[in-house]
Amino acid sequence: MDTRNAIDIKRIKESADYVRYLALECIERAQSGHPGLPLGCADLGVLLYRYILKFNPEVPLWPNRDRFILSAGHGSMLLYPLLYSVGYNITLADMANFRQFDSKTAGHPEYEREMGIETTTGPLGQGFANAVGIAIEGKMMAQRFNEPGFNLFDYTIYTLMGDGCNMEGLSYEAGSLAGHLGLDNLIAIYDSNHISIDGRTDMTFTEDVAKRYEALGWQVDFAASSDMETTFRKLQELKEAKGKPKLLILNTVIGDGLDKKRDTNEIHGSPAGPSEIAFFIQNSPAIKELFEKKYGKEPVADKKALEEILAERMRNQKTEPLLTLSESDEFMREMRAGSRALCDEWEKRLAQYKEAFPAKYAELSRYLKFELPGSLDDKLLNYTYPKSNATRFISGEVLNLCAGEIPQIVGGSADLADSTKGLVKGSPYIKRGDFSGRRIAFGIREHAMAAIGNGLALNKTMIPFSSTFFTFFDYMKPAVRLASLMKLNHLFIFSHDSIYVGEDGPTHQPIEHLNSLRLLPNLYTFRPANDIETAFSYLYFLKHMNGPVALITSRQKIEERIMGVVPGGLNREAFYQMFEKGGYVFYESDGKEEPGIILCGSGSEVSLARDAAALIEARNNIKVRVVSIPCLELLNETDSSYREQLFNQFRKPVVYIEAASHRGIRCFCDKNVIIIDIHSFGKSAPAKQVAEHFGFTAEAVYKRIEKQLA
Amino acid sequence: MDTRNAIDIKRIKESADYVRYLALECIERAQSGHPGLPLGCADLGVLLYRYILKFNPEVPLWPNRDRFILSAGHGSMLLYPLLYSVGYNITLADMANFRQFDSKTAGHPEYEREMGIETTTGPLGQGFANAVGIAIEGKMMAQRFNEPGFNLFDYTIYTLMGDGCNMEGLSYEAGSLAGHLGLDNLIAIYDSNHISIDGRTDMTFTEDVAKRYEALGWQVDFAASSDMETTFRKLQELKEAKGKPKLLILNTVIGDGLDKKRDTNEIHGSPAGPSEIAFFIQNSPAIKELFEKKYGKEPVADKKALEEILAERMRNQKTEPLLTLSESDEFMREMRAGSRALCDEWEKRLAQYKEAFPAKYAELSRYLKFELPGSLDDKLLNYTYPKSNATRFISGEVLNLCAGEIPQIVGGSADLADSTKGLVKGSPYIKRGDFSGRRIAFGIREHAMAAIGNGLALNKTMIPFSSTFFTFFDYMKPAVRLASLMKLNHLFIFSHDSIYVGEDGPTHQPIEHLNSLRLLPNLYTFRPANDIETAFSYLYFLKHMNGPVALITSRQKIEERIMGVVPGGLNREAFYQMFEKGGYVFYESDGKEEPGIILCGSGSEVSLARDAAALIEARNNIKVRVVSIPCLELLNETDSSYREQLFNQFRKPVVYIEAASHRGIRCFCDKNVIIIDIHSFGKSAPAKQVAEHFGFTAEAVYKRIEKQLA
Repeated sequence: MDTRNAIDIKRIKESADYVRYLALECIERAQSGHPGLPLGCADLGVLLYRYILKFNPEVPLWPNRDRFILSAGHGSMLLYPLLYSVGYNITLADMANFRQFDSKTAGHPEYEREMGIETTTGPLGQGFANAVGIAIEGKMMAQRFNEPGFNLFDYTIYTLMGDGCNMEGLSYEAGSLAGHLGLDNLIAIYDSNHISIDGRTDMTFTEDVAKRYEALGWQVDFAASSDMETTFRKLQELKEAKGKPKLLILNTVIGDGLDKKRDTNEIHGSPAGPSEIAFFIQNSPAIKELFEKKYGKEPVADKKALEEILAERMRNQKTEPLLTLSESDEFMREMRAGSRALCDEWEKRLAQYKEAFPAKYAELSRYLKFELPGSLDDKLLNYTYPKSNATRFISGEVLNLCAGEIPQIVGGSADLADSTKGLVKGSPYIKRGDFSGRRIAFGIREHAMAAIGNGLALNKTMIPFSSTFFTFFDYMKPAVRLASLMKLNHLFIFSHDSIYVGEDGPTHQPIEHLNSLRLLPNLYTFRPANDIETAFSYLYFLKHMNGPVALITSRQKIEERIMGVVPGGLNREAFYQMFEKGGYVFYESDGKEEPGIILCGSGSEVSLARDAAALIEARNNIKVRVVSIPCLELLNETDSSYREQLFNQFRKPVVYIEAASHRGIRCFCDKNVIIIDIHSFGKSAPAKQVAEHFGFTAEAVYKRIEKQLA
Repeated sequence: MDTRNAIDIKRIKESADYVRYLALECIERAQSGHPGLPLGCADLGVLLYRYILKFNPEVPLWPNRDRFILSAGHGSMLLYPLLYSVGYNITLADMANFRQFDSKTAGHPEYEREMGIETTTGPLGQGFANAVGIAIEGKMMAQRFNEPGFNLFDYTIYTLMGDGCNMEGLSYEAGSLAGHLGLDNLIAIYDSNHISIDGRTDMTFTEDVAKRYEALGWQVDFAASSDMETTFRKLQELKEAKGKPKLLILNTVIGDGLDKKRDTNEIHGSPAGPSEIAFFIQNSPAIKELFEKKYGKEPVADKKALEEILAERMRNQKTEPLLTLSESDEFMREMRAGSRALCDEWEKRLAQYKEAFPAKYAELSRYLKFELPGSLDDKLLNYTYPKSNATRFISGEVLNLCAGEIPQIVGGSADLADSTKGLVKGSPYIKRGDFSGRRIAFGIREHAMAAIGNGLALNKTMIPFSSTFFTFFDYMKPAVRLASLMKLNHLFIFSHDSIYVGEDGPTHQPIEHLNSLRLLPNLYTFRPANDIETAFSYLYFLKHMNGPVALITSRQKIEERIMGVVPGGLNREAFYQMFEKGGYVFYESDGKEEPGIILCGSGSEVSLARDAAALIEARNNIKVRVVSIPCLELLNETDSSYREQLFNQFRKPVVYIEAASHRGIRCFCDKNVIIIDIHSFGKSAPAKQVAEHFGFTAEAVYKRIEKQLA
């Protein structure tokens, strides 16, 4: 933080107008974007980056930097000019390329920490919940590594949220947990401009936001963007205040600086147009001068002429650079020098810490390098669970095997820890004032759990996991999507994976969820059939660390004879290589001829396929192959030659058995493919009866394919 | 409501204990269920059904009945005994069959209005949001039809919510909108027992709930279940209070009536066990007597003997009926008589209304019979939109064509009305004190929008629609699932359907959503290619009225030459019949031979397929067929012979083109099927470039299939 108490209002205003200019012109060039927020929050943005945030664009990953999360991600043209101004790796040319293919300046900010973008935002409420996650991470790192005289981790998380973020239930969930945990390293700034896309917010949003946050245990204060001195003072006070997360409700004016579109919903998400931009230029001394320097006083004073200048700039946008206001750049980068000193000092302290606490330093290095112990590979490769149990129990054991060696693993469940077995045994829950634990009681807040978990993953120190019943994946999907988009190393553990949930009935029996997850790019969904596949799924996650993994486990027990199956006498390493292809021959009848039928599936249906195979062997004189498909996405992506071999090119019937909906392109499947799936919602009854109802018994499967066996 | 001011505490307690007994024994029999809530809220339940709610089990659909929504649906064994007691169509035998296959008493309450179950609950927060929807419906019906002296609609909606419901962001969203709208016909009762599944709620939920609801514009009061007189008085006061929705925070004790498991999380979701049940029986005068009558005083006084009696009852559960406490039944059914009078009186008033306001009465009849005008069919059958436009615009026009003839159509969007075109033109927004409008400004609350829309659909008077960007389907999925499960007539309009969203980038480009929707049982997803398919999609929804429809529309324009295409000179009715098969020949090259290649897809990709077909015709000497698939689910369900004909049994290559993820069983598709889809997240750039990047141009499609054409 800047040590001076005074702020230079004039220069803030000047830099803010430069931000406005850049936002207006870049959005105009793209003919696409959201000028409302950048114009309304430009002064605040300049205040934050010039006077408040501690960071170092030359060491963008400085672990103790303050974080700024633009939760209202549509306002990306606020963030890019600020990052440019202070010296991050964004140029004027990058901004001139706003929203163009493969540009650094995407429509919504896309996670790129080296560029100063701490998370991907756009879907409302997510950035705010990510900020809560980072705040937890900050508290965890502080408690794990800070020592008297060595405040290695004391950074503050700032997030800018709009009306949309506040209306989303996600922000309430995350805010409630933040208040409960007393996350005083978190400062949210509410860009309260009273305008949303459809009109004034009072058409639907008239609650008392301040009172609500107070009810959640937040400290709340007010300021207005027109009064930066008070805003600065309030932000300083809030930073110093202890014990609660803080909300500054900032009165702003959407589209500030414009003429007719100022304070209207028209400016939320559409280019301002030449007339409004000309008005802005003529009324901003700094920007007016900038244009006068280039185009002369007279044309700039004449609105029509100025509009023509702007139109000409748009026409020539491929060659015409954005204007540079070097006074603003100089002003903004003064901060950078101060920040660099703080960063250097931190490095020095770290060197001293290494001397004073060598063991802790070694551990911290492992965190910062995101280094995982190799010893775990062998344990996971050779894991067995010798008796019948549900894969959720096995998952719980494997999770704790991993957590025992990887202290970075933290997480919890949405009030279902004992059901999902998603808990780090022997560790306390984190709580207000004590973040030494590795368990998080997320409460019945699935959406916040996932988004906060994403926040925990963003800094690449912690490895978070979230867990709940599979059916409640729905409640957290928007955040699972962002984990996938950002390739965050977030493990999603979903138990109670299908109709076998039984008595709780259709609301609690996931039908469509398995294939919904599989549709998500970058995410790999594992539905293990037994102990080894469960351990291998964890191994896959930890080995690749290249995005989220969803682990889908059973409520019900898997029979003992399905446990520990290693195909064809392979060694475990070779087996794991095959596992990574997504599917493998789990069982094959004796005999040299080609199988007359191939049964395949995932999870507990592998066990079912194995039973059906036994029936076929007993009743027909046919060789049967059972293929386990722990990860259908990997099988889709593997060599087609491997797949062709696995399924013998569909020469004989292939029966795909999965207690899940495959509504979709099933009618395009090979005529030799028989899909046994579920087309309707579940039923409330004991699991066995539900399974019988849906034909998920060996006998029923046999009946379905009897004709093909003849 | 009961006119007496006095309530009979002793008899309430007696009936409440009978509810407890039924809950305990039925859950014990099923060895599955949630006793905690029924035990904690039994007194409240009896108070509500005996003294407060107005209803008539003999006319369960009485339009002006009070509604009771058990939002905490896991407590279903509170609801069933109450419905049984007052005389709904649930017997002791039904309850003895709790959670068994096809029983009336499912694990969680399943929507069955004739039985007194107003909605399906279980996924937390949903029932509460449904209640908000019903409250809006109540206000709408009142304003449309009440006349001085004829308060035909003045019912009250009561909902019982737990800690889980309150922690879910959904309830905040719905609560915020309810407060904004001043829904004073809504009374929520918060079963505050301080216990959730993982332990005491103070491990994660320490906010000031009362203050939060006050901030949302609710009137809040307190009571305790141990003091039914105060609870009754408070509920009466709240019912009379005007202008705000009301929350009664009721202190309860989970598992009330038990010994060691009382006030612990152990009793939330597991059978109490014989020892606890015996304790309850011995300590409840009424239930003790009931057992004594059957088994004698001595064995009931002896805990071990009583446990053995219970064990015996469980062993003989198939033949051993539940015990009847006729005093309780008599007491509970007194209410029923009073209610019946109110219901009769309502019918009389309705007859007078018919005389006084014949036109209004006729309209009301159409609402109550859920009768739609036949005239619309022709208009939809013959609809055309003569020029190039996006299907979202066309959808907006068709929606208004329908809304013009069907006043029951109400709805809105989550702050994106102008983008999705999901708005009833010329109608005002509903607002506090004025519910004459047909537009709802849901705010940026997608989840609440969908769940409130479900509430609006429950009574089968209104036909609600919800709309937002397709990518935000994720935020509302849990409620879309419930609409599907309940087969509610809720139209979901999703615009901006794919990568063609362009500059807003990957967060705003739906990739996996199309196929996620298709996986949902009971729901049909239409992605129309042009004007006719859009109108036909509406026709399908209105014609069947048998569950939700999702309409997926384009952001970008569809070319004029794709508009109005009627295959093979069919008349519109025959065309519609074919449309209902889910797919049809949209175009075919001239010539008599079999097509050498078939291109198919949905939405704007039909246009793309048409362009690719033109390239193939120009460059190769091959006949091409283009198949449009507006609804893949219907195509999956149609006669296989129709499909075989459509795709010529996959003898020649079939190219499935859809700008959406098909990760899943794609590797099982026929070797002649080429799927051109999207495997990764989108990109921020102008739509055209994004489409080029993903190979969604005629030229790129041509390249992909060039080999097959040779």
